[in-house]
Amino acid sequence: MSQPFSKMGVVGAGSMGSNLAMLFTENGLQVSIFDVKPENIDALPTVFEGGLDAKYRDCITLFKEYKPFMESLGGTGMPKLLVFSIPHGSAADKIIEDIRDHLAEGDIILDGGNEWYLNAERRQKYLQPHGVSYISMGVSGGYQSARRGPSISPSGDKRALDSVMPLLEKFAAKDPKTGLPCVVNLGPAGCGHYVKMIHNGIEQGILGIVNEAWELMYKCLNIDLDTISKIFMEWGSEGELKRNFLINIGAEICGRHHPNNHPSHVLNEVQDKVVQDADETEGTGIWSVMEATKRHVSAPTIASAHFFRIASADRAQRLSVVDNLGESLGAARKQQVDEVFCKAFVEDLRLAVYCACLASFAQGLNLIARASADEGWGVDLASCIRIWREGCIIRSEYIADLLQPLLEKECKLTNILTLRPVGEEVRRTLPALKKVVVTAIEWNAHIPALSASLEYYKYCAGKHLPSQFMEAEMDYFGAHSYDLKCDGPGEVKKGQHHFEWKPA
Amino acid sequence: MSQPFSKMGVVGAGSMGSNLAMLFTENGLQVSIFDVKPENIDALPTVFEGGLDAKYRDCITLFKEYKPFMESLGGTGMPKLLVFSIPHGSAADKIIEDIRDHLAEGDIILDGGNEWYLNAERRQKYLQPHGVSYISMGVSGGYQSARRGPSISPSGDKRALDSVMPLLEKFAAKDPKTGLPCVVNLGPAGCGHYVKMIHNGIEQGILGIVNEAWELMYKCLNIDLDTISKIFMEWGSEGELKRNFLINIGAEICGRHHPNNHPSHVLNEVQDKVVQDADETEGTGIWSVMEATKRHVSAPTIASAHFFRIASADRAQRLSVVDNLGESLGAARKQQVDEVFCKAFVEDLRLAVYCACLASFAQGLNLIARASADEGWGVDLASCIRIWREGCIIRSEYIADLLQPLLEKECKLTNILTLRPVGEEVRRTLPALKKVVVTAIEWNAHIPALSASLEYYKYCAGKHLPSQFMEAEMDYFGAHSYDLKCDGPGEVKKGQHHFEWKPA
Repeated sequence: MSQPFSKMGVVGAGSMGSNLAMLFTENGLQVSIFDVKPENIDALPTVFEGGLDAKYRDCITLFKEYKPFMESLGGTGMPKLLVFSIPHGSAADKIIEDIRDHLAEGDIILDGGNEWYLNAERRQKYLQPHGVSYISMGVSGGYQSARRGPSISPSGDKRALDSVMPLLEKFAAKDPKTGLPCVVNLGPAGCGHYVKMIHNGIEQGILGIVNEAWELMYKCLNIDLDTISKIFMEWGSEGELKRNFLINIGAEICGRHHPNNHPSHVLNEVQDKVVQDADETEGTGIWSVMEATKRHVSAPTIASAHFFRIASADRAQRLSVVDNLGESLGAARKQQVDEVFCKAFVEDLRLAVYCACLASFAQGLNLIARASADEGWGVDLASCIRIWREGCIIRSEYIADLLQPLLEKECKLTNILTLRPVGEEVRRTLPALKKVVVTAIEWNAHIPALSASLEYYKYCAGKHLPSQFMEAEMDYFGAHSYDLKCDGPGEVKKGQHHFEWKPA
Repeated sequence: MSQPFSKMGVVGAGSMGSNLAMLFTENGLQVSIFDVKPENIDALPTVFEGGLDAKYRDCITLFKEYKPFMESLGGTGMPKLLVFSIPHGSAADKIIEDIRDHLAEGDIILDGGNEWYLNAERRQKYLQPHGVSYISMGVSGGYQSARRGPSISPSGDKRALDSVMPLLEKFAAKDPKTGLPCVVNLGPAGCGHYVKMIHNGIEQGILGIVNEAWELMYKCLNIDLDTISKIFMEWGSEGELKRNFLINIGAEICGRHHPNNHPSHVLNEVQDKVVQDADETEGTGIWSVMEATKRHVSAPTIASAHFFRIASADRAQRLSVVDNLGESLGAARKQQVDEVFCKAFVEDLRLAVYCACLASFAQGLNLIARASADEGWGVDLASCIRIWREGCIIRSEYIADLLQPLLEKECKLTNILTLRPVGEEVRRTLPALKKVVVTAIEWNAHIPALSASLEYYKYCAGKHLPSQFMEAEMDYFGAHSYDLKCDGPGEVKKGQHHFEWKPA
């Protein structure tokens, strides 16, 4: 398409939508913004005054009704272009129904919410006969990235996507090393939302891992928050955790003193409840675990971090269990360790965090590869890494530098553990993970994700698993039958041998 | 219903169906048996000759076609009664279509397969207008129990279920302590299959746990199989693991020498692949993990055992990872330990296995309670324990003796960890679990389920979790907002406080 888009309609004026609107207008677009809640629109002038240069403010028009909103879009020879930034589920269906009469052939909807990929595919099929292209578009990085440039994973109709790609490349995050935009057309159908969902699954794993490292330093080693802030800063500035986003912001969080000086650190006022999976507001973490299970991909780092979060959400029940037991079973306690031990442990912890983060990536990428094969999407894993290089929550420069060149060469890969340089990294850092896990258990620290990652490596790289015994048990009562050891590795299918352990 | 059923039609002549047929006929029924595969019917005479007293053989009639099969059922004033013993999914739909013209008002289908509960509910709704009752009926215990008396969890239309209950009670397994049959009408709709699914989820957890204990003894402590057989026999005969089915059969398996004496133990010929989740033949393990995730119930013991199984299935990929790494990372190796240490460790291991099994029960029961509340089933957890007292794979007398009286008193319970006597058991045995996990990690043994169980207890009974840090991270980039520590435990819903860690 020779003529560039000059207008953008934003549906949803929450923190993501309003920040995207500001980003678009700075990139030369006339922006119309609409929200089903009038109060969200009323709040915008203050938001824009605080965050947007005055010269751009006039380029954004606010709407509380569909009709004028839709009429403000498109133009002579140009289709309408919309971005949805709304909660997943029925909200988008409702809006599509409401605006349908205003949509014409050639119009393009970019759904930037955390949508379930099958909902995206359903809408693509629904709108396609009308000539309207619905792009399944993951947007990552939180509201700061929405404002400065997010990581974008779009998929859908190729022609429509080609026509908007120059625009997406303009406002996407840029890899600071190469300047390349963190957006690639990932393929057909709903694979864009699928990849974003897995991004959030990997994020869930890393959130768990970093969280566990924080407890070990703060509660067990008794390191003060300002020092932890410095440690995270060092971790995130070079080596294996270089530019790991969740380490980088961890440094800021631990160092943040409360403006009112009460309590001294903001972090110390925060309750230990993560409710966003349990309260149904966020689907991606849940879907990631369900998809791993359904598609037969081992994802224990991601799943264990999820189950930990779920338990954290119900603080009232936890207190009732503690009360019932007469003590808190998981009470990471202050340890008497000398400075030399402490320093060595923190270095082991750094490598353990890296090794476990790599496990989270391995599991997520394995799941994308499996889903892509199942669904015929042809998603290129190297493109995923490229998209995740900047502007997203799982940004991790060292891991991206490790994986991207390997994945560019091995485009049919399913599990990164089969790559030689990845194997070398695991061998190099797994001893640290093992050491940390043993010590953390002795200290009663909470390490669901770290310990699950250790087990993951051991069984993925295990020549002889105890499942020989499990297989015999299942053959005993279920006549499931087994392969013989002398049969060789064999395929993933029912074995040929049954032993009548106990006649019926 | 005053007149008892005298005929039973069995659909499916596999190992479960044929054994059920023999059980029915010994309980005084005329049995008709049908299978879509004629070769399964052809195999039956040999099966019955080997396993059924001659006087009963004439009471079973074999059919390769629907029409005569259906015509052989029912009778004057009596409805037709059928049992399905077929794979889950479309098989039952196909059969229902094929026999529909032969079904009349009052007929009853007992679906005894491992069916997905929503499929069961769909069929109930489909058949109900025709006056045909479809009972969602879990049948557990493998083929030996199908022959001698299985554990049965039925649900559905109350009148129909009342009419068949005397029959079900007759052939169900009997609790050896009380003589009570291991069958209870669990409630409406598909809760019978749901409870059976969770039974299999708990089973998956216990299979993982016992499997891990086996490796520690066989590979790390270098105890020979005949001695492990004796240890399992002792474990299963009294104390915390008394009549734990998977321990009991573990004793038999470890002690079983090959008839041809090559290799000496049958177990040593079995390959370390458990494929039955990965190859789609079995759904219950997968569904259990998906349901836990979807309904926001922490089930890490069950999930970690599942992911281990999945990894075990793809032996070819494991070997490729090992080859890539140049070593097997998870190689539980022989340890030099003296007899005193070994004896103490084995005793700790026994308590650790019990403690972890209790975690698997806690997670499964929590999920049943949640689903029952969500769906309005009113499932009584004490009834589940009663059903599981004999004839099923998760039979565990000590645990049933612990839980059943407590659950009979607390019928609105969601998590058994809030029960005082359960808390006491956990406090008493968790130190052993912790000791075993630390040592097993040092030994490079595979302990996904044991270590996940330890973490589960720590976070369920944790007064202060590190999730305070995770919550702050999510508030940083997602403005998710949090509760204050001073807000008290609070509900499972979004907090009220946001700190602007970094303006957009």
